[in-house]
Amino acid sequence: MQVRRIVLSRRPVGMPAASDFETVTSELPDLEEGQVQLKTVYVSVDPYMRGRMAGLAEPAPPFSLGDVITGGVIARVVKSRDPALPSGTLVQAGYGWQTGAVASGGTVEPINTGPLPPSAALGVLGSTGLTGYFGMMKVGRPQTGAAVVVSGAAGAVGSVAGQVARLAGARGVGVAGTDDKCALLHGKMGFDAAVNYKAPDFTQALGAAYPEGVDVYFDNVGGPVYSAVLPLITHGARIAVCGQMSQYNLDELEPSPAIPTLLLNRGAVMEGLQLMKYRASYPEARAQLAEWVARGDLHYEETIVEGFDRLVEAFQQLFTGGNIGKLLVHVPD
Amino acid sequence: MQVRRIVLSRRPVGMPAASDFETVTSELPDLEEGQVQLKTVYVSVDPYMRGRMAGLAEPAPPFSLGDVITGGVIARVVKSRDPALPSGTLVQAGYGWQTGAVASGGTVEPINTGPLPPSAALGVLGSTGLTGYFGMMKVGRPQTGAAVVVSGAAGAVGSVAGQVARLAGARGVGVAGTDDKCALLHGKMGFDAAVNYKAPDFTQALGAAYPEGVDVYFDNVGGPVYSAVLPLITHGARIAVCGQMSQYNLDELEPSPAIPTLLLNRGAVMEGLQLMKYRASYPEARAQLAEWVARGDLHYEETIVEGFDRLVEAFQQLFTGGNIGKLLVHVPD
Repeated sequence: MQVRRIVLSRRPVGMPAASDFETVTSELPDLEEGQVQLKTVYVSVDPYMRGRMAGLAEPAPPFSLGDVITGGVIARVVKSRDPALPSGTLVQAGYGWQTGAVASGGTVEPINTGPLPPSAALGVLGSTGLTGYFGMMKVGRPQTGAAVVVSGAAGAVGSVAGQVARLAGARGVGVAGTDDKCALLHGKMGFDAAVNYKAPDFTQALGAAYPEGVDVYFDNVGGPVYSAVLPLITHGARIAVCGQMSQYNLDELEPSPAIPTLLLNRGAVMEGLQLMKYRASYPEARAQLAEWVARGDLHYEETIVEGFDRLVEAFQQLFTGGNIGKLLVHVPD
Repeated sequence: MQVRRIVLSRRPVGMPAASDFETVTSELPDLEEGQVQLKTVYVSVDPYMRGRMAGLAEPAPPFSLGDVITGGVIARVVKSRDPALPSGTLVQAGYGWQTGAVASGGTVEPINTGPLPPSAALGVLGSTGLTGYFGMMKVGRPQTGAAVVVSGAAGAVGSVAGQVARLAGARGVGVAGTDDKCALLHGKMGFDAAVNYKAPDFTQALGAAYPEGVDVYFDNVGGPVYSAVLPLITHGARIAVCGQMSQYNLDELEPSPAIPTLLLNRGAVMEGLQLMKYRASYPEARAQLAEWVARGDLHYEETIVEGFDRLVEAFQQLFTGGNIGKLLVHVPD
């Protein structure tokens, strides 16, 4: 089988451009004992990949030039020399932006999303759902009735985080960049309120939503939204840093306001989420998220872009606010 | 009895100047039932007072112009209409920069420093000692063997914090501004190492002390020392913000480096200490500190300036690094 692969050909400066990538074609090798041949169904595009393209040493090791962009995929087994994974099995793998691959059976995981579609394994039941869940429950830790603000609230992580806060008994205000997103947050997703950070009265709207201040801030974006929320935090507030979308395409990170003085004055905490820390609890968290979805208490959205050739375009959408919920590329049969 | 009082006559700009204060003389009123007349023995001068002089709303309410600078004192009862506090009793009170005062017996506390001198009630067994203790034990929380850095390490808070870290089984490196202070830290105070932040090789010396990075940073100063330590933090590091000395005399706070990205990349935590949160545990903490001092495991220093008239000069010393350990003004009989 011939496959197409998208490799990094140049380190992006600012917004990643089509010319930073190259599509190469290659023939898959014959299967050895215990291997499977996979055909890609869905490819995940995630903001953290931008950091790896930049060649930074952290948080994840950088891609080298010529490397395939790796990340989560859902694939179908089309040939198998692993009896545990017969042809037709849907699995999750990590080989990234490729139309197919050969993998050892032990390195892939059969999809088990119960009544939810397989794509949920990359979204609400995958890393983004888990980030929203653990970021809120373990880092944000809202008390009953707490005033919670989530930035990037219509994204894959933020939409879960805000709903988890509500399910934990807190109030949730979502910050997003379009009125449609705000309507979704305040509507189907049950946020108590949603504010559009591009509106001229954004700062006042935020203050009006919580006149007594913000107890938990779940930050996906950093930058101006972060600078607007910070002065509103209460004594003993908790700030969960789960992403910094506004910074990923910058050559130089923006300086912060005087964070240590703020944290000192308010007896507040700011913590960066490290998802892997909670690895042992992934199964319970997935079960809880699935139960909430099944009960209708947790609403999730997906934005699905059709066609492998549109992967880079889909990736760019992440940074222009083009997606609602989890962004996936579907590779047709 | 006539007393002298130092009042705020102008809000300081930059380093507080003698002309920002005025000394006024007044006659104490006659005692009512339950009151005592107090003569000051020691006056505490503390960095946090600078914030109250600036008129900022937080962390503590601001002084108004004309207000006496309030804060901790040790005083002797010279007249009493409270049978629980006979003449001659040494007490701790909060009336601040005054040579004496009248107070209700219930608002002062008899000194009980055991074998330690009464001045210890304002230092190692007082707010500064407690800040060092709780800041390290509850916010820094070093593991056994952890690499701890303390800035302002020769001060009243930092010297306790660093030694508490060692007593908790961690390693401690102190940052201070003179070679004499560093010698004291590395010598009598048992820090594993001490580095002078004014030395040209400061950043390298810090890196050399902990080639594998800094697990806990206890920050009293902010500014350039803070900016030098931050890049060295390890995954899962904890930053306890207990003071920001370098910022107190600035008109405008310095911006921070990109803190949220750093905390996200390292899965790290930054927390502002709120001492009052641990109020219920003060007695046990004082007992523990006293026991360590008695056993010779905790060494404390005091810098005592002679004479009430030198109060403002003593206060300035805090910001020029003139003190080692707790800075007190002694008011002779």
